[in-house]
Amino acid sequence: MTDPRDPLVIFTPSGKRGHFPAGTPVLTAARQLGVDLDSVCGGRGICSKCQITPGYGEFPKHGVSVAADALSDWNAVEERYKSKRGMIDGRRLGCQARIQADVVIDVPPESQVHKQVVRKAATARDIIMDPATRLYYVEVDEPDMHEPSGDLERLAKALSDQWGIAGLTADLDVLRKLQPVLRKGAWKVTVAVHRGNHDAAPRVLDLWPGFDEDGIYGLAIDLGSTTVAAHLCDLRDGRVLASAGVMNPQIRFGEDLMSRVSYAMMNPGGDREMTAAVRMALNGLAQTIATEAAVDPARIMEVVFVCNPVMHHLLLGIDPVELGQAPFALASSDAMSLDAAELDLNAVNTNARVYVLPLIAGHVGADCAAVALSEEPQKATDMVLIVDVGTNAELLCGNRDRVLACSSPTGPAFEGAQISSGQRAAPGAIERVQIDPVTKEPRFRVIGSELWSDDPGFAEATAQTGITGICGSGIIEAVAEMRIAGVVDGSGLIGSAEQVGTPRLVAEGRTHSYVLHDSRAEGGPRIMVTQGDIRAIQLAKSALYAGARLLMDELAIDKVDRVVLAGAFGAHISPKHAMVLGMIPDVPLDKVISAGNAAGTGARIALLNLAARDEIERVVRDIHKVETAIEPRFQEHFVAANAIPHATAPFPELSKVVSLPEVSYNPSSGGGEGRRRRRG
Amino acid sequence: MTDPRDPLVIFTPSGKRGHFPAGTPVLTAARQLGVDLDSVCGGRGICSKCQITPGYGEFPKHGVSVAADALSDWNAVEERYKSKRGMIDGRRLGCQARIQADVVIDVPPESQVHKQVVRKAATARDIIMDPATRLYYVEVDEPDMHEPSGDLERLAKALSDQWGIAGLTADLDVLRKLQPVLRKGAWKVTVAVHRGNHDAAPRVLDLWPGFDEDGIYGLAIDLGSTTVAAHLCDLRDGRVLASAGVMNPQIRFGEDLMSRVSYAMMNPGGDREMTAAVRMALNGLAQTIATEAAVDPARIMEVVFVCNPVMHHLLLGIDPVELGQAPFALASSDAMSLDAAELDLNAVNTNARVYVLPLIAGHVGADCAAVALSEEPQKATDMVLIVDVGTNAELLCGNRDRVLACSSPTGPAFEGAQISSGQRAAPGAIERVQIDPVTKEPRFRVIGSELWSDDPGFAEATAQTGITGICGSGIIEAVAEMRIAGVVDGSGLIGSAEQVGTPRLVAEGRTHSYVLHDSRAEGGPRIMVTQGDIRAIQLAKSALYAGARLLMDELAIDKVDRVVLAGAFGAHISPKHAMVLGMIPDVPLDKVISAGNAAGTGARIALLNLAARDEIERVVRDIHKVETAIEPRFQEHFVAANAIPHATAPFPELSKVVSLPEVSYNPSSGGGEGRRRRRG
Repeated sequence: MTDPRDPLVIFTPSGKRGHFPAGTPVLTAARQLGVDLDSVCGGRGICSKCQITPGYGEFPKHGVSVAADALSDWNAVEERYKSKRGMIDGRRLGCQARIQADVVIDVPPESQVHKQVVRKAATARDIIMDPATRLYYVEVDEPDMHEPSGDLERLAKALSDQWGIAGLTADLDVLRKLQPVLRKGAWKVTVAVHRGNHDAAPRVLDLWPGFDEDGIYGLAIDLGSTTVAAHLCDLRDGRVLASAGVMNPQIRFGEDLMSRVSYAMMNPGGDREMTAAVRMALNGLAQTIATEAAVDPARIMEVVFVCNPVMHHLLLGIDPVELGQAPFALASSDAMSLDAAELDLNAVNTNARVYVLPLIAGHVGADCAAVALSEEPQKATDMVLIVDVGTNAELLCGNRDRVLACSSPTGPAFEGAQISSGQRAAPGAIERVQIDPVTKEPRFRVIGSELWSDDPGFAEATAQTGITGICGSGIIEAVAEMRIAGVVDGSGLIGSAEQVGTPRLVAEGRTHSYVLHDSRAEGGPRIMVTQGDIRAIQLAKSALYAGARLLMDELAIDKVDRVVLAGAFGAHISPKHAMVLGMIPDVPLDKVISAGNAAGTGARIALLNLAARDEIERVVRDIHKVETAIEPRFQEHFVAANAIPHATAPFPELSKVVSLPEVSYNPSSGGGEGRRRRRG
Repeated sequence: MTDPRDPLVIFTPSGKRGHFPAGTPVLTAARQLGVDLDSVCGGRGICSKCQITPGYGEFPKHGVSVAADALSDWNAVEERYKSKRGMIDGRRLGCQARIQADVVIDVPPESQVHKQVVRKAATARDIIMDPATRLYYVEVDEPDMHEPSGDLERLAKALSDQWGIAGLTADLDVLRKLQPVLRKGAWKVTVAVHRGNHDAAPRVLDLWPGFDEDGIYGLAIDLGSTTVAAHLCDLRDGRVLASAGVMNPQIRFGEDLMSRVSYAMMNPGGDREMTAAVRMALNGLAQTIATEAAVDPARIMEVVFVCNPVMHHLLLGIDPVELGQAPFALASSDAMSLDAAELDLNAVNTNARVYVLPLIAGHVGADCAAVALSEEPQKATDMVLIVDVGTNAELLCGNRDRVLACSSPTGPAFEGAQISSGQRAAPGAIERVQIDPVTKEPRFRVIGSELWSDDPGFAEATAQTGITGICGSGIIEAVAEMRIAGVVDGSGLIGSAEQVGTPRLVAEGRTHSYVLHDSRAEGGPRIMVTQGDIRAIQLAKSALYAGARLLMDELAIDKVDRVVLAGAFGAHISPKHAMVLGMIPDVPLDKVISAGNAAGTGARIALLNLAARDEIERVVRDIHKVETAIEPRFQEHFVAANAIPHATAPFPELSKVVSLPEVSYNPSSGGGEGRRRRRG
């Protein structure tokens, strides 16, 4: 590396350079210089991960001229690999090509160990590949009666000698298969080694005879109260191979978090029922997603979870009863590393490891930590409010100086639940709504078609799915448009057909409903927005807004620079309508950004990058938690936020005419089921 | 500690001394000086472990004079403890008594954390109490909504603040009970914390509300091919509360190790059957021994195992097939730390930890490592041969310069098996034999009576048990005495009644048997030593002797200074008869020492002293293993050792008269079942 008479090797894009004796393999030079060049087989010409592209000719920038014979000739190993698997022309295998004279070597992105997994969303961070579990190909010494040592100890020695992995451990299950696998592979094996964070000893999770080509995979799971969403990622290159979601089967024990806590309180063993239910669903989900990606589920070596505190405790089998009452004490808040078997996750590899992100507080979960990992408010130079809307909303507000977090019990209305015509976001659901301010006539779009309901061909385009209901983003737009069109007043009251002047308003008891679509003549449903729907949306949005205000109070600010909407719902919501409704504080419309499933992205980051686990564990310690349930101002903000402020057309207040239910927030009810009192 | 104007405190027996401000509790002073003074409650006057004895008057040796009021007055906490539990007069509680003037404080042995567990056998080492699992009483902060952290994190903080235990971890099972236990104990709990060796993170194994008084226990288990022996120890003071043994139920799959390996080879799933059988027996044994000691088995927090390699693999659920053929590759040879649950040991605490001592080689097990831990040949200044006789014999030979080990397949003859009238050492078994060299008449003793068979009252004394057979030590003495009395010749052949001149010899086919006792008239058995018995003993003793010679060859010595007989059998064997038989090399009779169950003692040391685990892991790396199965000289020694050398009376060789089976050692048969060829 230092003798200037030796050939000079320059690696791009890193720019690392050094002198190496003629005959040094390119891979060896790269390793000695600390160049990021991948290899699974350790330079044996098997894995082809170390492909490089030599440059020939003049490189004035680097001050070198590269001769055609700067590298050793194309050899039989390379020829065999290329003829069998194919290789881009001009590429060489770094372990085969030897340095003969000055040369410039480019390492293409796919040959980098720590390759970036490029994300689609422009706002989001890249993920650097550095997964906890990686594959290593090793050749193990055969046993020798004169120097007796166990097969495991010789495997450990091979990993130490050939890969620098010291202090290897293995579970009994691995030990049970070790001897047959070593012999089947003729003492050559591919080993999946897991490194935990916190200096945990490296551990063999599994091993396969010879050089393994089937790969290893990981699951990033966002375990929500209502839905469980998972990404299946290739742990070698970070690609998402499949994504899938299922309903959380705990819904049958209670729609929202607090009703599940109540179920556990009221029913001895109820927590265990809910634990068993979600674990069974997780196994099913792992099976489904693996099948979809044509991956053997036994090749899933890691699972990362993000979830709120109640889901967290129920996943781990901890009775969540303490989370149902002040002081909302968590059994444990720190991140956890576990065996998948401890969670009965038997669909994945027997020795798969689980990482659960840390919780922030009794009401602010690992899902919120994952959002922080993905959206990084702690690094923001502007003041950002991040809203992750699920059955509970998690809010983060702050910048690089200080970040606050809270949770707000919005209930499931934003997900289309507890809405008369509500449904999950699925084909056939109304997702976009416009109401003509003059005629009060609606037009809408349904999931599965790009057409509006008054476009030609709409009926044909939706014939397959039908028009079945209204999803979360649809109800937001419907209520906001009703307000803009003057169908609803600032207090949230729907006017009558006479008051508003449209036959779309029908009386139902003492209140009125707005008919969005009526297909009863064809045997279909009548899709309406009822007064109850408006109230549910008002409760949900008031809780959300009050949470944001509380954090802003604590930060002593009265506006934010940017709002990030996270969550599946956040991806579809219309910023304009959200602001009309008063869900989020006012900011310029172009400063409302959708981050997609940020919690899921955070889970994926923790799955693919070990350092991110340390990072989020550090970050959550610095996030200040605000407990909405005991903060009197939350109640004040909640009540104040009940109105729907942004009518663009003036409209007479209707509350003078009809007596209205008044809304009061009851924290122990935990959601959209606020206590209601009649006003006389 | 340094201001000479402060009172001087001198601790005995350590001699540690320092100056402390008036008012300092004695326990605090002891801790600051590093004096070994126990405390479980952390100085709260609950546990009474910190009892000390202040000395008053003149101490010329220490140069101090102690006034009657050198310590604060006897207080209410001490009075309450003394009246409730009793305390020796003159004792004080170290956490209550405060230093007021110069004082000399004696720490009695029972107040020392690292108290010695005194052993009965004079030759053996003491055990210093330093168990991996200890109890700690802590007071935990209550949860605070404004500073949210999990209950586990606050428990960890308490253990760190109050006991200096950093980096605490806990399994899910502990986490599940943590919240109710903390609340039941009003935030005061006693925690069982396990520290592994190799810098493993401290782990909570269990916890109980308030100050726990029921204690924690450990099992030291010697898992032999034939018997499983266990000691139940109190992990607080090291006392052995009960000892118990059961037959290894794997016997039904094969008497000796190699026949069990064969069973696993021939029967798919056979290894799993044997694993399940031994684990079930271990659970039963844990139950039995806990019941005997009136201890809740759920209070057993640790289990230490010593066993030979085949038992080791079958215990761990590893197919032992590789141990049945050269090169006898172990799956793993290093020591192992496991959860008891991984071995299905559900009779003990759910979170109990298991430590398995390291193996030395494919034929030399953790039992041999345990013997080394107990008998310490690696520290000997004389040349010692340690023989642990079981179904397989383990031999250690050497001194502090070098220790060699080997295993020799003696078969079960020494345990009374494969002997025509053989039986286990149990009441009714003949254990001592003498034969009159002139009359050839025997006298004997049976287990359960101190009388010889020709003593008055013998018949009455043995009426209860009867005379049922002959145990291992009995058959050794019988064969040796038969040789001394000229009943058997140097080749091992039994003479006829005519040749020897006694009607005790009866013809059986072409060979003869010697009748030791005949109670057929009373419906009892006829107890004989047959020619087959002599051959079985010859095979066993030849294997043992050949192993010893092989080690001596390797050490280039032709005699040893001392022979240690370990194992239950070793405790009962007569050194003289062992030497007559040629089981062990010649040494002065007073240099043959019985070490009792040294493997069991080694297990107990590893149970009670964490440093001993590091020590034995280091020691086994330095023990050189000699593989008998591939060493041609073993075969030579084996054949040469076949004769029974030490007849004190000359006797004509009988082999000229009767054709004899010749014995050839076949290593793969693994025991007393050597291949035999007829000589024409």
